[in-house]
Amino acid sequence: MQPAERHARHFQAELELLKTRLLEMGGLAEEQVRLAVKALVDRDRDLLQRVLGGDEPLNKLHIEIDGRCFTLLALNQPRAADLRVIVAAVKINTGLERLGDMAVNSAEAAVRYAQHPPVKRLIDIPRMATIAQGMVRDALDAFVRRDTGLAQQVLNEDDKLDALKTQIFRELLTYMLQDPATIEPALDLILISRHLERVGDHATNIAEDVIFMVSARDVRHHAGDDHPI
Amino acid sequence: MQPAERHARHFQAELELLKTRLLEMGGLAEEQVRLAVKALVDRDRDLLQRVLGGDEPLNKLHIEIDGRCFTLLALNQPRAADLRVIVAAVKINTGLERLGDMAVNSAEAAVRYAQHPPVKRLIDIPRMATIAQGMVRDALDAFVRRDTGLAQQVLNEDDKLDALKTQIFRELLTYMLQDPATIEPALDLILISRHLERVGDHATNIAEDVIFMVSARDVRHHAGDDHPI
Repeated sequence: MQPAERHARHFQAELELLKTRLLEMGGLAEEQVRLAVKALVDRDRDLLQRVLGGDEPLNKLHIEIDGRCFTLLALNQPRAADLRVIVAAVKINTGLERLGDMAVNSAEAAVRYAQHPPVKRLIDIPRMATIAQGMVRDALDAFVRRDTGLAQQVLNEDDKLDALKTQIFRELLTYMLQDPATIEPALDLILISRHLERVGDHATNIAEDVIFMVSARDVRHHAGDDHPI
Repeated sequence: MQPAERHARHFQAELELLKTRLLEMGGLAEEQVRLAVKALVDRDRDLLQRVLGGDEPLNKLHIEIDGRCFTLLALNQPRAADLRVIVAAVKINTGLERLGDMAVNSAEAAVRYAQHPPVKRLIDIPRMATIAQGMVRDALDAFVRRDTGLAQQVLNEDDKLDALKTQIFRELLTYMLQDPATIEPALDLILISRHLERVGDHATNIAEDVIFMVSARDVRHHAGDDHPI
């Protein structure tokens, strides 16, 4: 094998490893979100503590992946297509780390929520979590498989999340107006629904990065993507 | 002038232009935040509409800066130090665009707020806005001047913002418990205070990127950076 060929093979192997690590990070972040909402529903304080202490592996991966992107950029002169993958990876990595923060923020609100009697049976918040997790998973699959169709599906899912968030807000508002004792716990549910909305926003950002990466077409800042409450 | 030297000068000129454009974008984003909070305080619906329609220049700059980063990475083989600047610029650009979203989200909440009688005189929310704007400005100055001392100052400011957010929340909660008519508008003030907190978070992220860029030292994921409500 020629040195240039060996170099190219090594580069491609490192690029594959980068993708694997991003998938791994996405899996960890998604699991943190899942556990935070499960613990909220089950009022499981032990599980909440696990989520609160569980972002260390994510933070380590964040730094490792950042380093991998940097090395790939520094040690090679990537072709335009590979460059787009690496720049997308830098952005996705940042987003996934924030996604872990959303899980922690949700768990913090859930700890406070568990100190009050339940306001209502929680149906829509777990539904939001399921949709948001699916969006993250699909967005990362779309990244690895360069699948713009799947990325487009992720963008479409975001409307469902927005509709649920608005519905949750309206319902909780009626509880709060009827019974002041529900104000404090209902506020925490509203905050959690907004954290889950932001999980979806991060998935949407990843999906947009994928479409740009594959087609060099910029779908960001399309009309009609405002976020009413 | 030799071609290599001409190439190097051109590269440095492009890098300076990239920084100038990021400063410009930061100025626009900061102004959007300032106007959103001014319009909230003055109950100025015309100004709110201006903020809501005012993120187009930001979105254009976002795409332009992304393109500049990509070109700088693709057409040159940047040295490690320059590479760190460009990778930081990619991240900062993403953050500044989100910051514009925070201004729009705040303006949306302010439009709803203006439909109710005022809950209270607004003192702490403008104070939060002033601190958050200062953090964004300082973080970008730190980026351009490679000033890690200033970046560290930005990190320290974040505690003030957290304290104000908590204070605002507690005060508004007492209003809501006393008078259900304040629940809906108070909720919007709480949401605005959280958008402003996120403006500060974005400034913090920029400051961390600057410290990493200059010293290649990773200050992210330091202990004690949890975000209680």
